[in-house]
Amino acid sequence: MIDWNSSGLSILEVSHRSPEFEAVVLKTQLLVRELLRVPDDYSVLFLQGGASTQFSMIPLNFLKTKGTYLDTGYFALKAIKEAKHYGHVAVAATSADKNYSYIPDVNLTEPGGDYLHCTSNNTIEGTEIFHFPQTDIPLFCDMSSDIFSRMINVRDFDLIYAGAQKNMGPAGMTLVIVKDELLKQVNKALPSMSDYRVYRDNQSMFNTPPVFSIYVAMLNLLWLKDQGGVEGIEQMNMRKARVLYTEIDRNPLFQGSAAIAHRSRMNVTFTTVDPAHEKDFLDFAEARGFVGISGYRSVGGFRASLYNALPLESVQALTAVMYEFQRYKYPLSAEIKEAQLIN
Amino acid sequence: MIDWNSSGLSILEVSHRSPEFEAVVLKTQLLVRELLRVPDDYSVLFLQGGASTQFSMIPLNFLKTKGTYLDTGYFALKAIKEAKHYGHVAVAATSADKNYSYIPDVNLTEPGGDYLHCTSNNTIEGTEIFHFPQTDIPLFCDMSSDIFSRMINVRDFDLIYAGAQKNMGPAGMTLVIVKDELLKQVNKALPSMSDYRVYRDNQSMFNTPPVFSIYVAMLNLLWLKDQGGVEGIEQMNMRKARVLYTEIDRNPLFQGSAAIAHRSRMNVTFTTVDPAHEKDFLDFAEARGFVGISGYRSVGGFRASLYNALPLESVQALTAVMYEFQRYKYPLSAEIKEAQLIN
Repeated sequence: MIDWNSSGLSILEVSHRSPEFEAVVLKTQLLVRELLRVPDDYSVLFLQGGASTQFSMIPLNFLKTKGTYLDTGYFALKAIKEAKHYGHVAVAATSADKNYSYIPDVNLTEPGGDYLHCTSNNTIEGTEIFHFPQTDIPLFCDMSSDIFSRMINVRDFDLIYAGAQKNMGPAGMTLVIVKDELLKQVNKALPSMSDYRVYRDNQSMFNTPPVFSIYVAMLNLLWLKDQGGVEGIEQMNMRKARVLYTEIDRNPLFQGSAAIAHRSRMNVTFTTVDPAHEKDFLDFAEARGFVGISGYRSVGGFRASLYNALPLESVQALTAVMYEFQRYKYPLSAEIKEAQLIN
Repeated sequence: MIDWNSSGLSILEVSHRSPEFEAVVLKTQLLVRELLRVPDDYSVLFLQGGASTQFSMIPLNFLKTKGTYLDTGYFALKAIKEAKHYGHVAVAATSADKNYSYIPDVNLTEPGGDYLHCTSNNTIEGTEIFHFPQTDIPLFCDMSSDIFSRMINVRDFDLIYAGAQKNMGPAGMTLVIVKDELLKQVNKALPSMSDYRVYRDNQSMFNTPPVFSIYVAMLNLLWLKDQGGVEGIEQMNMRKARVLYTEIDRNPLFQGSAAIAHRSRMNVTFTTVDPAHEKDFLDFAEARGFVGISGYRSVGGFRASLYNALPLESVQALTAVMYEFQRYKYPLSAEIKEAQLIN
């Protein structure tokens, strides 16, 4: 922070036009390419703002007759709402009927439109797409909350975007991976800061970029590489999720919120079977050092986010508290305790 | 960074919806209000992106029939270019005729339009507006490079904006100070991330804000308060600029680039009188530890930026090197040296 690369300057002080900082942007791009095996005919861009900015920028760039959306919850709905400012919007499928607790099937032949937009992981609802839609129209995906958590085939998508703040770096930067062919089809003049071509043609430095966010993303992706890359962290993420879901399913006091086939590995949502236990468990867990596990108000219950940076030990600690809570509510009888000691 | 407010969490880890972070946003807003004496009928907002994002957002929100601009150089021209995407744009006055080395007068009665946009300080050209236009239409000002460097009367403006990275904090955040009355006149639906009303109604947290930029801005504004506030730093900035301009005017090898009445206190632009000396001085200064003083390519020569954080000692060190360069090029004769010793 204070003496970056022995320059005597902080990364926050050097010019973003300096060769030193340009090397940071280039290195970060290369790490994204390497870790996700991004094909050469895709551009890797760093934009300001978050996914919410992309909710507008996508229809501004690509909506001509109709934008088609998969409605899987809170953030998908936000994307839909913003797209309506730019033209006709169709919802290909929705799981609103069951409070977004599952990923709906997309009717493959019907929807049509300029693109199909989906949200790979739904942080609030705790669902995740494991089988992406097969479609002839360009597929766009908001991967803000599970990018770099699992291997994806970039070629299945025409545009991927992700706010930095889950698995990449500090808020204020958005990664965009876009197929060059898609950008060739944009043939209108656009405001510079809303034009993907401007970012591509200026190596993401048309204006002063979010220097610190990009720099920390670089450090974080280097760390990810040391974890065995995306494949390595994916194994760890699967293990973390398995440990927690196993306890949820085993412990008679808790139940998962999402359909089993669509359970997110990043955001585990669950409730107490008895609603009267909810506050008890929050207090019980907080007394043992667990903060921030309340679920979002529309879902209730609890949410444990298992992003890349969270160690397995934290998940194990949570499951231990869940077990302890069970024993606190339903103490083992003296006979069982004695039997366990004998065995 | 590691253990923020003894929470055991980093400022980069806490939820931006936590009361702790909300307190940071509120505190930063209050510091802005206090330091610039922002009237109660103005809102203080923190947006993502930089001034370039505002170049589009302003006409999107406020251009109905005509946007009027004062053309004072590189960044003013960028604002003009982006506004043209949204409607008719008029240039009230320009100093292009003299390579933007002065601030042109605005014809007060003629231009009209929905607003008059100006750029208070021109980083590349080294000019600064000390007498803002008097006009009946709303006055907007890009203060990215001199906000918090001198006292302004906020009530003279309807909208002020400033990218964070000069006198506030890390890049990726923009301060907007806007008159509530102005926002009342916006009566169309806009994309959320381009709608000032959305930021106002959500305490700048409609989406995840640039947490780190806001936090560092808060720390920096607390530092500014310790310097005697804007009034205190203004005195220091005047002194720093005076020291450097005095040497430029005294030293026969150098000359200032900007008209004397419009010389910027933030960015001092100057050249060698003999163009053949330019590279010599760059090397001479670099050998003595001065980096990054090359001027922008359209202006040439040198640029010394004297932002709030730069200490007077750095300016004095630069003037010493300029004097040393003069003596290196034109050594004092033995007679003069002897005379000086005697005196």
